[in-house]
Amino acid sequence: MDWPMPTEPTTPSVMDQIVSLCKRRGFVYQASEIYGGIRGFWDYGPLGVLLKNNIRDWWWKCMVECPPVGPDGDIVSMVGLDSSIIQHPKTWEASGHTATFADPMRRCTKCGHIIRADHYWDILVTTSKWFNDLIQSFEYAPTPTPYPALTTGPLLRWANRAGKKLAPNMALVRNPEVTLASLATRVNGQPTSPPDVREITQYLATEQMHMTGLQDPCVLCGAPMGTPEQFNLMMVTYAGTTQSAENLVYLRPETAQGIFLNFRNIIDTNRIKVPFGVAQTGKSFRNELTPRNFIFRSREFEQMEMEFFCPPDDALKWYEFWRGERMKWWLTLGIKPENLIFRDHATDELSHYSKATVDIEYKYPFTAPDFGELEGIAHRGDYDLSQHSKHSGQKLDYFDQELQLKLKEQGASAEDVKSKSRYIPNVIEPASGLTRAVLVLLCEAYTYEKGRAGAEEWFKFKPKFAPVKLGIFPLVNKDGMPEMAEKIYMDLRQRYTCEYDPKQSIGKRYARMDEIGTPMCIVVDGDSLKDNTVTVRDRDTTAQERVSVDKLHAYVAAKLEM
Amino acid sequence: MDWPMPTEPTTPSVMDQIVSLCKRRGFVYQASEIYGGIRGFWDYGPLGVLLKNNIRDWWWKCMVECPPVGPDGDIVSMVGLDSSIIQHPKTWEASGHTATFADPMRRCTKCGHIIRADHYWDILVTTSKWFNDLIQSFEYAPTPTPYPALTTGPLLRWANRAGKKLAPNMALVRNPEVTLASLATRVNGQPTSPPDVREITQYLATEQMHMTGLQDPCVLCGAPMGTPEQFNLMMVTYAGTTQSAENLVYLRPETAQGIFLNFRNIIDTNRIKVPFGVAQTGKSFRNELTPRNFIFRSREFEQMEMEFFCPPDDALKWYEFWRGERMKWWLTLGIKPENLIFRDHATDELSHYSKATVDIEYKYPFTAPDFGELEGIAHRGDYDLSQHSKHSGQKLDYFDQELQLKLKEQGASAEDVKSKSRYIPNVIEPASGLTRAVLVLLCEAYTYEKGRAGAEEWFKFKPKFAPVKLGIFPLVNKDGMPEMAEKIYMDLRQRYTCEYDPKQSIGKRYARMDEIGTPMCIVVDGDSLKDNTVTVRDRDTTAQERVSVDKLHAYVAAKLEM
Repeated sequence: MDWPMPTEPTTPSVMDQIVSLCKRRGFVYQASEIYGGIRGFWDYGPLGVLLKNNIRDWWWKCMVECPPVGPDGDIVSMVGLDSSIIQHPKTWEASGHTATFADPMRRCTKCGHIIRADHYWDILVTTSKWFNDLIQSFEYAPTPTPYPALTTGPLLRWANRAGKKLAPNMALVRNPEVTLASLATRVNGQPTSPPDVREITQYLATEQMHMTGLQDPCVLCGAPMGTPEQFNLMMVTYAGTTQSAENLVYLRPETAQGIFLNFRNIIDTNRIKVPFGVAQTGKSFRNELTPRNFIFRSREFEQMEMEFFCPPDDALKWYEFWRGERMKWWLTLGIKPENLIFRDHATDELSHYSKATVDIEYKYPFTAPDFGELEGIAHRGDYDLSQHSKHSGQKLDYFDQELQLKLKEQGASAEDVKSKSRYIPNVIEPASGLTRAVLVLLCEAYTYEKGRAGAEEWFKFKPKFAPVKLGIFPLVNKDGMPEMAEKIYMDLRQRYTCEYDPKQSIGKRYARMDEIGTPMCIVVDGDSLKDNTVTVRDRDTTAQERVSVDKLHAYVAAKLEM
Repeated sequence: MDWPMPTEPTTPSVMDQIVSLCKRRGFVYQASEIYGGIRGFWDYGPLGVLLKNNIRDWWWKCMVECPPVGPDGDIVSMVGLDSSIIQHPKTWEASGHTATFADPMRRCTKCGHIIRADHYWDILVTTSKWFNDLIQSFEYAPTPTPYPALTTGPLLRWANRAGKKLAPNMALVRNPEVTLASLATRVNGQPTSPPDVREITQYLATEQMHMTGLQDPCVLCGAPMGTPEQFNLMMVTYAGTTQSAENLVYLRPETAQGIFLNFRNIIDTNRIKVPFGVAQTGKSFRNELTPRNFIFRSREFEQMEMEFFCPPDDALKWYEFWRGERMKWWLTLGIKPENLIFRDHATDELSHYSKATVDIEYKYPFTAPDFGELEGIAHRGDYDLSQHSKHSGQKLDYFDQELQLKLKEQGASAEDVKSKSRYIPNVIEPASGLTRAVLVLLCEAYTYEKGRAGAEEWFKFKPKFAPVKLGIFPLVNKDGMPEMAEKIYMDLRQRYTCEYDPKQSIGKRYARMDEIGTPMCIVVDGDSLKDNTVTVRDRDTTAQERVSVDKLHAYVAAKLEM
């Protein structure tokens, strides 16, 4: 999975309500809350862990146990894996994570965009959109000073038009007169050493020269960049007795690399052939500068990642296949289609090794009406296996016997047969966040209806994913009702996560079950003892139906779609 | 869970065979193997992850979804949790982990026993068994020197008898003449400053004085201790932009503390009352000096831990209850009863806060005929909640309304009612290792039978825990057989983890399924197409039975006991 770029945080009030309900009903707590919390870490409470496990198990069932039929008409081959969070540090050299994140970084003081400080001017500014547009407005006119100076007219026009869109937070755009006056002072004050393009740009990005000195503008928004900081998003630790360089290891920032490391092992020890995939779920860690938006961007999070290995010539076909399959899968969670979109990465946005990448995005309350990242599906070429092969000295190529036969049948030349049937597999990576999926289901299910019977706000989960499937209550806690209700509970809990609750008014018990998204409540009342029936109440309609205990299993199974 | 003490590693050959089969068939790989591995870390391959998930899910089902009936006749209340690996550093101050493991440690050069260097003489040696026995042999006789000297006779006798058992690796025991001669030189050489008991003991522990200088003997085995090293078993990392003290955090060495941190949250946001338990599974990290015995002691491992909160007066009752329940649970995994024992901790072995602790131990191949740790069940009193309350300033006590009513009914004094109905709950902690449970099932299931049809060595897992439940094969990959076998596979995989394998000789396919412990293989042959039956082969008996496809679901369900 690629490194995400921070976006500006916004928290509309529906998000606050969700966070509050999650805390109040035991879905998600701030980690170490009794010690004042710890930024970017969350604990999943009794209901949160059930919701998360339901999503995890469904993903595993759909991808590992019952994978779909592939574009070639065969059932997709997929195996599971659970690799270590800590791996040999060379892993991250090979993957590029050490190099990319061990440099001094600078962060925009306004939009939070993080860049490598050493790439700032030569690579990033000179290729940025606003810069290449801005320099079209650098017009030189002869002046009384010994060299030609910039005329302010075109710059003012740029500030008022293109600048507003391309670099809205730039000093020139926000406060053109003051900014240009400051540049004029510089030009007039030191006529013998004219400013170059870089210095002019810095002047145009500086609002209060006397307070801050010259500023470097953000390549995205034009606001001043912060000073460089040594910063790697990977968290370090030490495996061994001393905290020395030789013992330094990293907490994985993605589960994906553990799969590449085991490519050879899996090929050698399982009856499996390319094309095939490897799937795993597990914790990852990123030292986010600005963890935010509840569990959307946290420092410790859980992923569901697959690496699908295929012959290079088939990679685009598999990329298209996974694109479609993954969207289908998200829809099985009960997410409304209008809340999910594909966002194809533009060519200049792709990692240098990626041939194509698409994000599946969700309309979060804090991004709406825009969408935010949920899953990335990347065509990674042979980058990962090639890199690990190079760094480890191990062969990570594959001899494709079936392809060899096919090529021979097709009458290919001996040379072609030889060169084409041994290759480094290409990789399609559908990588998503499990904890982010939890957030999506919480947002999607959150419902508010003023004055409703039961609870006014509740989670309308698709039954399959509801943390608790059935609330089972005796109407009153006496007269043989608890005994009968307990018996039903002991039976149904073998198959479904049930909650037995014998006390409080029935209305309060319904309301609480609504809030946590329990699809149905089963109530044993006075009549139950006489005619062996119970009342089943539906969360969404609040309608009640009388069901014979003998038919309860079938009734419940049908309603829960399980 | 308490910190384990290292024991001397031994690796009998059956263990090597298990490790080798695990690697060969994709259960467990060394982490980062292509980079030469990383000590103490393991990856769970396609079959290992299935086995591990089966154990994890069964524990969750038995403890969280269908907990047993408690000693009070009520169904046990249990909820799940998934807390962060990284918590606020004060967590570990409160729990005692920072203090206990931030001191200089010394390790025995022979047996690996680790001790706190600052406790070495005054606490550890002076209370050690061999020391208190040895000093009975310090007999002083008048000599020509100005002070009385030790007589060598009793020391020699000690070396040849008690010493061999109590301190087998001590210089005095291994090489008494040389050692005593060295002590004599000291005594004769500096008659004006006689050696004290500590110096004498050091002389008795030093074999080659001129090479090593005086040595400190190990409190367990008498061999020389290594020099002090700063060492904490907790792995550190940094959450934030700089690797400074203020950002220092720890990877949890146990999942348990995350439960204590959330005690208040869980009480406040769930309909739950003391007594109740909280269960969670997840990764923990310990910077073991000597990771060893395959996945028995690794630096990254997975736990299944519960904290059960109860009124102080009922704690012993609950301790006895969990002791029994947990042993019962291990037996449900198909472990032979003779391979499991209880080992009660002796009074001097208990943590200072624990009122009672018992280990459930398993006879691992590398401990046999002895047993090694698998689960610990500890009566922890109110230590944890008291500590976190003290360090956080938050109230972590509990008002027990039911107890209050009961006391009033019993006619207790107003004062007693008040003081007894508000308390800090006591905790019973059944804490076990999930990855260790994987090891136990691998060891328990490993079977070798020379010349057997099928595979000679195979994993005889109880069907419920077998990674793959069913192998489904067409006898030959043509004549309509693969189509029919695929149909059966597509149907059965909805419910069981199945493997479809259309190629190779049928004997090889059976053998491979035996090896990985698949309980049954279903084969579609020529007759199947005519009479809609299949052959079902049993892993353990290798017997084959003809079963109608219509009855296959029921047949399989009964055999798999699911």
